[in-house]
Amino acid sequence: EIVEAVEAALGTGPLKGRHVLVTSGPTHEPIDPVRYIANRSSGAQGTAIAAALRDLGARVSFVTGPADVPPPAGVEVIPVQTAQEMAEAVNSVLPADAAVFAAAVADWRVANAAGQKMKKDGSGSLPTLEFAENPDILASVSQLQAGRPKLVVGFAAETHDVERHATEKRARKGCDWIVANDVSPGTGIMGGAENAVTLITANGAETWPRLTKHETARRLALRIAEALD
Amino acid sequence: EIVEAVEAALGTGPLKGRHVLVTSGPTHEPIDPVRYIANRSSGAQGTAIAAALRDLGARVSFVTGPADVPPPAGVEVIPVQTAQEMAEAVNSVLPADAAVFAAAVADWRVANAAGQKMKKDGSGSLPTLEFAENPDILASVSQLQAGRPKLVVGFAAETHDVERHATEKRARKGCDWIVANDVSPGTGIMGGAENAVTLITANGAETWPRLTKHETARRLALRIAEALD
Repeated sequence: EIVEAVEAALGTGPLKGRHVLVTSGPTHEPIDPVRYIANRSSGAQGTAIAAALRDLGARVSFVTGPADVPPPAGVEVIPVQTAQEMAEAVNSVLPADAAVFAAAVADWRVANAAGQKMKKDGSGSLPTLEFAENPDILASVSQLQAGRPKLVVGFAAETHDVERHATEKRARKGCDWIVANDVSPGTGIMGGAENAVTLITANGAETWPRLTKHETARRLALRIAEALD
Repeated sequence: EIVEAVEAALGTGPLKGRHVLVTSGPTHEPIDPVRYIANRSSGAQGTAIAAALRDLGARVSFVTGPADVPPPAGVEVIPVQTAQEMAEAVNSVLPADAAVFAAAVADWRVANAAGQKMKKDGSGSLPTLEFAENPDILASVSQLQAGRPKLVVGFAAETHDVERHATEKRARKGCDWIVANDVSPGTGIMGGAENAVTLITANGAETWPRLTKHETARRLALRIAEALD
């Protein structure tokens, strides 16, 4: 770590001269002015990845939803709330050599979001939320005809059949790698300090040991540096 | 403040020997293991009220949803996630001399919450959320036949017609006071450091000046001490 801090300060390191985009955190999709739909994502893993890439010398653009953890120093931070805002921010920072989509983006937004607070009207009748599909940021960047990052990394938060779902996701989205993890409540990963990752590449699935999110991030950043080399 | 800190330390102060319940923060209502519906409540006002009541000598039970700000020292903290959990926690700490319901409780929970993560199935079809009404904690405590706190204080977060809605809410719930505020995005109150309160009592509406949430809390705590005297 000291070597890397020195390398980063000197503007050296294996990712010197590379631009990497990282998305992180949850998105918040408004229901009305006081209610929203959120994902359980602390932003800890994405933040650690941005910091690890920075430590290897990369110029990092960090597009982050409303996370629990503060963004790392020394990266360009673009804060957003909704999936649509995140999609626009991602487009605004491309091109990049690599893109790591660690954010937990809402698949759906509320199509009939209200401009005023929804109120119980005393009739006992319940509100109906209509949904619209959000832009698929990972798929659209993976399938760019021009200016596609050389390496596109997606994340898959699964609660069952992790490897199968993640492998299918890689094929469906067209990305290069999927970092998959099991976020079942029992694992303590969601919101916790550790992660247990399965990396899906064109060569199959690699199961990583349970590591801190910082160690997972460092390992992923080194793999990204190798892939761009 | 120094006088009150000394009084609190000495176990004196106008609320010495009184038990006050305060609820605070948002509730989170699960949609599936990774998604939930939340309210935009930082918990700052409820936390300040609990601290102010403590400073006047009260024994404070603090039932809090997942707030942005840490709970105050020197109070009994009961952390909860959902409205149903909050209702149970409130029942568990009663009886109390006064109850201040500052939490932004979800009116509705998702009736068809999923045990596994909801996934896009590729068909383009959208999920349907069915809602169920949450327990009305303010109304049920206000209307207790036995063991009702002498003073029950509700909050109303409104985006329009604040005084009229809050006055109607006071009558409908059966509470003694309503602390109403305008949480329209333009006011900067939601998530901000200040509050602009209208206090609705049996005697009508009182408009308080725009104050910090700490000053608002202190003023409310002093009024509660007067009312219990």
